[in-house]
Amino acid sequence: MPKAYYIGTFIHSLSLTTLEIVEHGIICVSNGVIKSIHRVGKDYSESDSTLPPSVLLQTLGHDDSNNTPPPTIHITPKNHFLFPGLIDTHIHASQYPNLGLFGKTTLLDWLNKYTFPLEASLADPVRAKRVYSHCVRRSLQNGTTTAAYYATQSARSTNILTDVLISLGQRGFVGRCAMDSDLQPEWYRDMSPEAAEEDTSACVAYCKKADQSGRVRGVVTPRFAPSCTRETLCRLGRLLAAGEQEGLLCQTHISENKSEVELVKELFPECSSYAQVYDVYNLLTPRTVLAHAIHLTEEEITLVKSRGSGISHCPVSNMALGSGNLWVRRLLDEGVKVGLGTDVSGGYDVNVLEAARMACLVSRSVAEGGVTEDGKGEDSKISVEEALWLATRGGAEVLGLEGKVGGLEVGMVWDAILVGADEVPFDHTPNGRGNGVKMPTEAHHEGKKSKIGGKVDFFGWESWEEKVAKWLYSGDDRNIRSVWVGGELVFQK
Amino acid sequence: MPKAYYIGTFIHSLSLTTLEIVEHGIICVSNGVIKSIHRVGKDYSESDSTLPPSVLLQTLGHDDSNNTPPPTIHITPKNHFLFPGLIDTHIHASQYPNLGLFGKTTLLDWLNKYTFPLEASLADPVRAKRVYSHCVRRSLQNGTTTAAYYATQSARSTNILTDVLISLGQRGFVGRCAMDSDLQPEWYRDMSPEAAEEDTSACVAYCKKADQSGRVRGVVTPRFAPSCTRETLCRLGRLLAAGEQEGLLCQTHISENKSEVELVKELFPECSSYAQVYDVYNLLTPRTVLAHAIHLTEEEITLVKSRGSGISHCPVSNMALGSGNLWVRRLLDEGVKVGLGTDVSGGYDVNVLEAARMACLVSRSVAEGGVTEDGKGEDSKISVEEALWLATRGGAEVLGLEGKVGGLEVGMVWDAILVGADEVPFDHTPNGRGNGVKMPTEAHHEGKKSKIGGKVDFFGWESWEEKVAKWLYSGDDRNIRSVWVGGELVFQK
Repeated sequence: MPKAYYIGTFIHSLSLTTLEIVEHGIICVSNGVIKSIHRVGKDYSESDSTLPPSVLLQTLGHDDSNNTPPPTIHITPKNHFLFPGLIDTHIHASQYPNLGLFGKTTLLDWLNKYTFPLEASLADPVRAKRVYSHCVRRSLQNGTTTAAYYATQSARSTNILTDVLISLGQRGFVGRCAMDSDLQPEWYRDMSPEAAEEDTSACVAYCKKADQSGRVRGVVTPRFAPSCTRETLCRLGRLLAAGEQEGLLCQTHISENKSEVELVKELFPECSSYAQVYDVYNLLTPRTVLAHAIHLTEEEITLVKSRGSGISHCPVSNMALGSGNLWVRRLLDEGVKVGLGTDVSGGYDVNVLEAARMACLVSRSVAEGGVTEDGKGEDSKISVEEALWLATRGGAEVLGLEGKVGGLEVGMVWDAILVGADEVPFDHTPNGRGNGVKMPTEAHHEGKKSKIGGKVDFFGWESWEEKVAKWLYSGDDRNIRSVWVGGELVFQK
Repeated sequence: MPKAYYIGTFIHSLSLTTLEIVEHGIICVSNGVIKSIHRVGKDYSESDSTLPPSVLLQTLGHDDSNNTPPPTIHITPKNHFLFPGLIDTHIHASQYPNLGLFGKTTLLDWLNKYTFPLEASLADPVRAKRVYSHCVRRSLQNGTTTAAYYATQSARSTNILTDVLISLGQRGFVGRCAMDSDLQPEWYRDMSPEAAEEDTSACVAYCKKADQSGRVRGVVTPRFAPSCTRETLCRLGRLLAAGEQEGLLCQTHISENKSEVELVKELFPECSSYAQVYDVYNLLTPRTVLAHAIHLTEEEITLVKSRGSGISHCPVSNMALGSGNLWVRRLLDEGVKVGLGTDVSGGYDVNVLEAARMACLVSRSVAEGGVTEDGKGEDSKISVEEALWLATRGGAEVLGLEGKVGGLEVGMVWDAILVGADEVPFDHTPNGRGNGVKMPTEAHHEGKKSKIGGKVDFFGWESWEEKVAKWLYSGDDRNIRSVWVGGELVFQK
């Protein structure tokens, strides 16, 4: 791969509360890794056609004396910025076709009514390929460069998801759902703890063989405590320990819903808490991703923190299934790792940005009561900056990829997106109605040859901070123009 | 206008809990009004190219013996359906450019920091035209056929919004914000109660003169109790009473936020409640639209009910500003009229569908506590059917347009939208990566020449009920293909 220079505006999180906005920057990427970052005063982004590339490269000190191939140069258009790829720490690819279907159910009846029948049907490989391909493309299209997927109980079907990920170039984790308890329907479960372990191992091994780059990796995935027998949890804990050296991850669900918490109490009376169930089976580790975690007690939070496990916050799903509102601020204050998950199809949108905006909204609901006895209050609100940190840096930490993805820093891989929006035109003279009337974005596009459209409207007077906020609240896939993973362009509008 | 026949699938609310889904229907529209509706067994929608129009018209009994112009025939494509136009009962067109901007503010500081400066700036007519045109087009593009707008304090600027509405063909109400109390900034308020009344009257008269069809009408708009002096409230009450004959409406805000409720108590100590403030000034009438109404007491609900006023539920805004969760079920059970409002830019989306889906989500939060002492519980949940009723029939009732818009019935005007989505292709063989890789919707579109795209994905096995649910949860402007108001096509993709 030749060197690539990205010239223009870039934005990323420096800390939970701070976005760095570099209006005029130059990022050099070589072999998929960020080699250098220049923060310059001059606006190269506007000089598209006038600045000779040779002058530019000289300015940058590019060495063209030897026979290296000429670098590629990407110049960020007006009202566009480079941003780290979004990270989805929890998504069920197999449930994608059920987006938006949940009736009035909550977690446990939703699983039986909507989820298990669909997942089971993906034993059909043609169907599995159709569903997984579409889901992963939609995810990429929305700017997600890394995702932690659940597939189904079927190893064969799970491996199809692995193939799709490798083929489409998304960084990701693929988990086969281990689930052998008799709470699962008979027609959709592992036949024994041995089978549960064996199929999990086989799927992890499949990833390792199919993608030696390590971009796509298997992940130990006990569906959730009530789906697994003690024996299976025990075996999966051993599997996880055996994979410590190579950084094998574990993902599961915890305390999503009050009835579920009660159920775990009934099923595991010997454990003092839900978190303890995972802990006693050695599944609560620094490489464990726990989805939801809404109803954790203080003791459980302390335990999760001490084990170094991370939380995948899935606010869209939590709202949709009426699971409750996670008090994210408490977890952040305690120093627990937190990222965002779309939780398709408990969540109804594959877009991490929707999860980020809902994280802001839910935090306002948490704050709404004013300062309460337990300390909830104004401070509970998640800001735009914090939501975007969760969607990038936070997710990277949760998935054990901090220092590698989630920011724009020298040494990190080039997992990035180009985000953009249009400016609202002045020429708005209504010109008649009826058949064929032109709408503003269309008319605008014809004139400007923009391909983007979307809901985000810049009027031209916004600061970059405001542009970012508008993107967070109104952005959709139309604002994602290019997506790179490991330096490779994997999607372009 | 020649007669028009709409042939294919149509869907609308029969009652709060029932959607009528007519897979094969024929609707005849003449002079903008629905003349007849046939529910037929045969699938005309698939016979686009094969069924001769003359046979079809014969079947329908169309009289072509005299010299009437030949009718136009619209055939609904596969995976498309006709639906009543959406109704937005509360939107501030003047705040459109601030979509997504609110930082961590809540209502009262948000008004001063973000809202008033922007609204004041629209005294510039060039700016006003740009903002209003874009907002109304976006609203139409999202399928809103009727909207109740707030403009600004400036009468001149408000009249520009009226011009834009007339020109673009949306049905709507235009309100100039009356606001003369010293809680308003000096640089943005009415100079006296006389001026407040005079400018309100002038704007109402302007609509009447500019649009004799009555499609665009003025509306008495005391911004909210704290913005108005007693004298102004009194004058506006008289104005409203004088307009009773011709159905003049009133719109304002109520009980959005707890601090606001406290403020009203301080400002109007002689009134026993917020609702009573409006009542004593004769502003609580069957023609009054009250936005938000989150924190109403039971006494206030009884009062609102007895006066026949309607509530505009704005859940997106309520979440975004952390105002609280309206318990919609209680209002519905009490028989209070309820519709939906986007409340741009407290709400961050001009799409009524976003308000409808958030109404579902918020109702689940309300229900989440289980059955509480005050009766909240599972029954609080709003279903897909109910959300769509609120977005159409409910809105029509609130705006005094029941029987005219909000449903597809003989005698109603043809305010309708054509909704559609794509089917996920089977041909998903990943074919390489890098520059120029085709994404599914693009590839799909090339093959099928679909112009729609969007987030809603049909796999082909969904029932119509499921298709509607998917549209509710994932739909955006891309799924709105055509929009008619009064029989006239005002937007087409």
